Amino acid sequence: MARKDPRDVRRVTNIGAGPIGGGWSAHFLARGYDVVTYLHDAAEEGPLRQLVETAWVSLEALGLAEGASLENLHCTTDLAAACADADFVQESVPENLALKQALYEMLGELVPAEVVIASSTSGLSMTNIQARCSTPERTVVAHPFNPPYLLPLVEMIGGERTAPETVAWAADFYRLVGKAPLVMERELPGFIATRLQEALWREALHMVANGEATVEQIDLAVATGPGPRWAVMGPCMAFHVASGEGGMAHNLDHFGPALKLPWTRLEAPELTPELRQRMVDGCAREAAGRDFAVLAEARDRALASVLRAVQESRAEND
Amino acid sequence: MARKDPRDVRRVTNIGAGPIGGGWSAHFLARGYDVVTYLHDAAEEGPLRQLVETAWVSLEALGLAEGASLENLHCTTDLAAACADADFVQESVPENLALKQALYEMLGELVPAEVVIASSTSGLSMTNIQARCSTPERTVVAHPFNPPYLLPLVEMIGGERTAPETVAWAADFYRLVGKAPLVMERELPGFIATRLQEALWREALHMVANGEATVEQIDLAVATGPGPRWAVMGPCMAFHVASGEGGMAHNLDHFGPALKLPWTRLEAPELTPELRQRMVDGCAREAAGRDFAVLAEARDRALASVLRAVQESRAEND
Repeated sequence: MARKDPRDVRRVTNIGAGPIGGGWSAHFLARGYDVVTYLHDAAEEGPLRQLVETAWVSLEALGLAEGASLENLHCTTDLAAACADADFVQESVPENLALKQALYEMLGELVPAEVVIASSTSGLSMTNIQARCSTPERTVVAHPFNPPYLLPLVEMIGGERTAPETVAWAADFYRLVGKAPLVMERELPGFIATRLQEALWREALHMVANGEATVEQIDLAVATGPGPRWAVMGPCMAFHVASGEGGMAHNLDHFGPALKLPWTRLEAPELTPELRQRMVDGCAREAAGRDFAVLAEARDRALASVLRAVQESRAEND
Repeated sequence: MARKDPRDVRRVTNIGAGPIGGGWSAHFLARGYDVVTYLHDAAEEGPLRQLVETAWVSLEALGLAEGASLENLHCTTDLAAACADADFVQESVPENLALKQALYEMLGELVPAEVVIASSTSGLSMTNIQARCSTPERTVVAHPFNPPYLLPLVEMIGGERTAPETVAWAADFYRLVGKAPLVMERELPGFIATRLQEALWREALHMVANGEATVEQIDLAVATGPGPRWAVMGPCMAFHVASGEGGMAHNLDHFGPALKLPWTRLEAPELTPELRQRMVDGCAREAAGRDFAVLAEARDRALASVLRAVQESRAEND
């Protein structure tokens, strides 16, 4: 059977009702879909509906799709029923490989063969998850950031037996529902965003363990320093724009020696001419011809809006 | 002579007219101060005024203080004249210890003895910078994040010969001018925010060097994933709130084993009972009695505002 066009998806099945599965349920409801959420236990329905209602406040503020309604949420503890009419399946069960393998073995039979099954796993590889699935070609990793109903990132990668068109279809679908799919070229422990986040997190844990900084100091440092900048642009472009006319090339030439300093416990790679060139070329592609003045103005405008948004929310919450 | 009350400061002297010194000039102008900026070379005046005018657009959007005007910016290449009537000095010359030591030897004589001199240094220690200064007790590190006219963070630490009341006075002054001073307990290479940022940055460089991710993927991952969350709250509270009712304790108990996984090249410290307790206690202090539901709602509201701010700025820039 041919796969539906992503625009023709009507019914999304979520498997799992924790913070991630529940968060996805809220997201798809807000985008106007019929949502079926499979519960491992009927007792999960109350907390799930609570989570979705809490999320709804922000989702309404951001703007709901036409036809979006909390009434389109259907819960069931019958896995076969949850899967029978799905146009798309998002799986968010606990991070346990044996559990996921057993589940994908069942999903392989229960979910119509042309329907894509995406896993929210944050650390397992699809090659392993799909090992016992009879229809692995339509399975793919699609890892969101918490809360999935607000943060746009979805990191995507197939397993060894995933068909490339599955990844492409799912990326199109996520884009259509307002997400930012990041399609990786290879399976990598922690994917990309978690690796970056984890490096910062482990340095933070070291600092607290050694009495170099408190929890409060770490949170203040990030939220009033690099944090707002990273909401506006990633770390590479942030340094590119902070370095004036010279951009990333100037940054690396000027701060290259600082890569040897004990500014974190993580040792830097050798700044080879190849690495320097990749960084410079990548920033040039992102800048797409915009010069320093244009980029700095755009950054400032976005940053001022972000800082005002945070301030106003804080005032509201107090 | 007694030190002025921070509220009675009228004239701020900036030494250095690069992105940081110029950024500070813009910030103090926007807060209504008379600003004298010392230029190493008269030719720096044009670029400095350009930088300040660009910054002014965002500063106006955020709201200027009463009396704030670009006409209050005075430039000079005469260091003695720049220092004579200063109520506060912000030093932002290049990161070269010999240069700073020679400068602080001069400033020790030129700046009235009761006036605080703060260094924007991002990596040098005040103990070293103040080595040849005859009045080291009024010198302190005050490291901003770029752009200094928008990002609130100022990391502060005295040198061995800095008087504690100097640090306290400067922290009060920065708070008064809308900054978020972070007073450190000890001199630490890279201070706090740069250490955290540098860990993420070095992991990013490793990934690009090894062909695991492109510059564009890294920027997309941060700006659509952890970035917006870090604009709203630091990494500790972000995990505390993401972990539901169980908070940081649940996070560490649940993800503790993941600290051993190769999710970044930085090895984590041992998760000892003491470290676990410090993390849990720190988050409890920050939560200040607010439970999960309240914190999650506040986070969502702030996050939705931040995401909308970024989206709207992007639309304007396109």
